[in-house]
Amino acid sequence: MAKIQLPGLIDAHVHLREPGYTHKEDLFTGTSAALAGGVTTVLDMPNTVPSTSTPERLAEKVALAVDKAVCDVGLFVGATSSDLDAYLPAAQYACALKIYVNETFGSLRVDDLSTMHRLFRTWAERADELGGWRSEAAKGLGPIAVHAEDLMVPVCVLLSDLYDVPLHVVHVSRRSEIELIRVAKEKGSRVTCEVTPHHLFLSTEDLPRLGARGDMRPHLGTPDDVAAMWENLDVVDIFATDHAPHTLLEKASETPPPGVPGVQTMLPLLLTAVHAGRLTVEDIITRCVDAPRRVYSLPAQADTFVEVDVDAEWTVSDEAMLSRSQWTPFAGMSLRGRVERVTYLGRIVYEEGQVLAKPGSGRVLFQGRVLFQSE
Amino acid sequence: MAKIQLPGLIDAHVHLREPGYTHKEDLFTGTSAALAGGVTTVLDMPNTVPSTSTPERLAEKVALAVDKAVCDVGLFVGATSSDLDAYLPAAQYACALKIYVNETFGSLRVDDLSTMHRLFRTWAERADELGGWRSEAAKGLGPIAVHAEDLMVPVCVLLSDLYDVPLHVVHVSRRSEIELIRVAKEKGSRVTCEVTPHHLFLSTEDLPRLGARGDMRPHLGTPDDVAAMWENLDVVDIFATDHAPHTLLEKASETPPPGVPGVQTMLPLLLTAVHAGRLTVEDIITRCVDAPRRVYSLPAQADTFVEVDVDAEWTVSDEAMLSRSQWTPFAGMSLRGRVERVTYLGRIVYEEGQVLAKPGSGRVLFQGRVLFQSE
Repeated sequence: MAKIQLPGLIDAHVHLREPGYTHKEDLFTGTSAALAGGVTTVLDMPNTVPSTSTPERLAEKVALAVDKAVCDVGLFVGATSSDLDAYLPAAQYACALKIYVNETFGSLRVDDLSTMHRLFRTWAERADELGGWRSEAAKGLGPIAVHAEDLMVPVCVLLSDLYDVPLHVVHVSRRSEIELIRVAKEKGSRVTCEVTPHHLFLSTEDLPRLGARGDMRPHLGTPDDVAAMWENLDVVDIFATDHAPHTLLEKASETPPPGVPGVQTMLPLLLTAVHAGRLTVEDIITRCVDAPRRVYSLPAQADTFVEVDVDAEWTVSDEAMLSRSQWTPFAGMSLRGRVERVTYLGRIVYEEGQVLAKPGSGRVLFQGRVLFQSE
Repeated sequence: MAKIQLPGLIDAHVHLREPGYTHKEDLFTGTSAALAGGVTTVLDMPNTVPSTSTPERLAEKVALAVDKAVCDVGLFVGATSSDLDAYLPAAQYACALKIYVNETFGSLRVDDLSTMHRLFRTWAERADELGGWRSEAAKGLGPIAVHAEDLMVPVCVLLSDLYDVPLHVVHVSRRSEIELIRVAKEKGSRVTCEVTPHHLFLSTEDLPRLGARGDMRPHLGTPDDVAAMWENLDVVDIFATDHAPHTLLEKASETPPPGVPGVQTMLPLLLTAVHAGRLTVEDIITRCVDAPRRVYSLPAQADTFVEVDVDAEWTVSDEAMLSRSQWTPFAGMSLRGRVERVTYLGRIVYEEGQVLAKPGSGRVLFQGRVLFQSE
């Protein structure tokens, strides 16, 4: 049994659902599932209820995370069309600004040209006030992260180019998108992007089997889209899960909400790809540690590492999931590589399927610094 | 009565409707209306039936123009999703490639990212084969002209940036669009744009009065959109009419087609704005002669000029229109400035309301040269 040690992973895209949807997940269950997946930092999305779009809402979520998280948590602030004046004071203290320019779960949505233009312009103006994008002070502003599909990708890349604002395109899923991002990067655009495990390991061919369990935004790609992700891995900066839990009851309803859990299964899926010769361990560290740390200016984690048995074979099951939703679209898949033990800031926090950390032992990250640590 | 002499105007955006819709307009009636408006060059759009999207269709339209036109005529080739391999050999001999990325009259439409990406890439590759965009040979390729509204504007600007392809955005109509184009120009994008007289002189406030006579694509702007056009005139390279005749019977139907005639009324409208102090004559020459000639690499016209009485007051009427459609959305407006006489290539071709030129006395322009001249 070959054991290896990895740095604690960063999942730069999770929905921990608190406040508002704690029947699906909360900051304790979500960060517990993260630890079980070898993830010691999560960046939490703002489409909760209420949404994280003002300084007050951000402060409330910080307080919740301080009380409940068991790993490092960074927070996104979401742009809205209604709270335009409130987003900036909030967002500049978060890990990044998130704009939903395409339809997804929740009410956050900005998709008209003048509002999008204004968001990029004001973000750039704030960076200028701080001394320009290359200054230390502006680094903490973070990129503008966008849920942008299809034609919205070039819209966002142009706005990024025009204002020299770093842009991060979350969960890229189509050939047309990744091929455009390749050309933009080659031309010098300040764009980075991420791909989820479900867009790497599942496709539309799995839909008959998965049903609503395979429904998320962006939708699963065609086999050709999936092939494009693998062909263009050199353009993919980050692997992140878009962990988006809903209950199985909700998923079985007439109108199932889009989204699937993923934070616990990312590392084993990627290790299985290593075993198959499709990835190297270095590829994982680059995309799940180094790049998200650089893109979001996240602090280092001392004495934090993940012990993995890379040979262990196991079959994914809903029951093994620590997310409150307790299911996974990868159930039934046979994987190679299992998280055995996680050490976070010098303490063993996960071992043999058990989370050993107490709620509130995690840290809240702000602007590249540790803002709150309860102990 | 102050008389002035102007160079023959270029209307870089007309729909002369031939072949396929000759009950609305044809190459003789359309170019006759042009002469009556002081326009001695028109660039004709490809959304006819059949559409001008292959070398065969382009050759057919050239033959029609040779037989019927009474002024210089340049032709656009339209991109389609189906004839992708045929567009390039056609378009490189036309005055430019036209892409309809938004809904309008006719069947031409390309609006998926991968096809749009491919069109810009292949256009750039062709320019490279010809020695690069700055070479004399490539000049004749012309820009990619796009009907792009709202978010499609940044999509096209980015593709232009990525491939260094000159882009011309036709009939800009909204504040969000012109403000984006301003920033893109300031940042160095190779983008030019045009505004129509109806988007300068009419607004949504005229719709109750106009009904279907005020329906076109893009729709009339709000008064704020119209104000934005005037505020940003320095960003507007070209005035062009989007002359798009339909019969009054069609306009009175249950499903009136979008589009309005305009080639005959542009110059008097602009002269009226000069009279009101909103424009200078130089502004008109820059945007109706110099800029379109530069953008589309059009040849000079020797001994061609328009004699105008800038003081003449007159009221626009449907009856005075030489377009086969014989109506205008500006009917009833009181204007200052009237076209008295037009001289084209040394011959008087229009005088006192009468076109004196014979069908086929015009020329067909190709790649910046006069390709056919029947006499």
